Amino acid sequence: MAYELYYWPEIQGRGEFVRLALEQAGAAYTDVAREEDDDLPGLMHTMQDGAVPQPPFAPPYLKAGDLLIGQTANILLFLGDRHGLAPADEAGRLWTHQLQLTIADLVVEVHDTHHPIGSGLYYEDQKPEAKRRTEDFLAHRMPKYLGYFERVLARNPAGDAHLVGDGLTTADLSMFQIIAGLRYAFPKAMARIEPKHPRLVRLHDRVAALPRIKAYLASPRRIAFNQDGIFRHYPELDP
Amino acid sequence: MAYELYYWPEIQGRGEFVRLALEQAGAAYTDVAREEDDDLPGLMHTMQDGAVPQPPFAPPYLKAGDLLIGQTANILLFLGDRHGLAPADEAGRLWTHQLQLTIADLVVEVHDTHHPIGSGLYYEDQKPEAKRRTEDFLAHRMPKYLGYFERVLARNPAGDAHLVGDGLTTADLSMFQIIAGLRYAFPKAMARIEPKHPRLVRLHDRVAALPRIKAYLASPRRIAFNQDGIFRHYPELDP
Repeated sequence: MAYELYYWPEIQGRGEFVRLALEQAGAAYTDVAREEDDDLPGLMHTMQDGAVPQPPFAPPYLKAGDLLIGQTANILLFLGDRHGLAPADEAGRLWTHQLQLTIADLVVEVHDTHHPIGSGLYYEDQKPEAKRRTEDFLAHRMPKYLGYFERVLARNPAGDAHLVGDGLTTADLSMFQIIAGLRYAFPKAMARIEPKHPRLVRLHDRVAALPRIKAYLASPRRIAFNQDGIFRHYPELDP
Repeated sequence: MAYELYYWPEIQGRGEFVRLALEQAGAAYTDVAREEDDDLPGLMHTMQDGAVPQPPFAPPYLKAGDLLIGQTANILLFLGDRHGLAPADEAGRLWTHQLQLTIADLVVEVHDTHHPIGSGLYYEDQKPEAKRRTEDFLAHRMPKYLGYFERVLARNPAGDAHLVGDGLTTADLSMFQIIAGLRYAFPKAMARIEPKHPRLVRLHDRVAALPRIKAYLASPRRIAFNQDGIFRHYPELDP
């Protein structure tokens, strides 16, 4: 049974955290909207069809047989269990999911650097507010989050190669995407702050070198970072 | 074994979603920080102590025996399983958690109506931006979320008394808090929009009438809504 991933076809966005888990799992999946025309009939159908009893609020969502699973972290909870990308014991599962949810919080804050007023408005319609919000993000929030995840690696009793225990989890894969995305969006700020977070940089490099992830990143399946996703590079926001 | 809940002692905030689940479960728990002095030694200790191998990023977090569980939705996932406040089957658990995560997204957006620039700044330092963000929230985001949850109730094959199946879940308890909070923060906007969402209003009333919840709401354990929490009433934001 192949999974069906439903997400916007032209951005990495939140869907990328799911794509990375599916790729590392070696799972068969269809990235449905990337095979559709511009009207995205399948993607919108599931959200708008009155016959769907458990409609997702927004993409990404994953069809897995009879299951229709929405919310990025929830999808990763499911895939982590099914593909050995999370510990099997309750304490390990909860800790992995806790980190995943903290990553999700960071993703919201990254998005809101360029959309602090409304996700339905253009960046150009909220530039002064974006400038102020990004200054706060780079001065306070990004250091707080990165410092936290660096500490999680440093304190891991099993060593600092992984966020959880001594095995690869969805949280490691997602953290790779965070570092890659922040480098794209804020290259100057990241150049300044990275030396303080050597474990996170090594984790990024380790994930990027995993054979399946390396092959994925070099493939046309990996959409390039661009100005429509969550991580966007506006030079005026990264002085 | 009594649970220990760690959360800011003077607000409902995100901790309230956990308190409601603990109360409905009839679980023994200590609301630790409410028994501490102003320095909050226990609350801050766990976050700052270098010896804690799995530190939470922020409150609330719950100690359950040897487990230290952070992230509101993650705590509710745990409590739902343990106290029958979620279905036992995988599909039902994932759907309940999906709704819980969508509620968590809404909570972030409510918070950001009064803090669109920075959570470390005062409201008074971001009033023009808060005005704009709240206009967008009331015009677009609040209707989108409430319309979604109303549809979830309407489409529930087991009837519209609960968000999930025919039993009470943490998602129902949290939805009660959302309606109560939005009424406190935006009484005028809610008076206009509530008639379109009769199922959500009935769900709110049904939860409020549960014997344990009713007793909790009437007790001193229920902190009143106030201007330091997530739901805040600024008349200028609800014209």
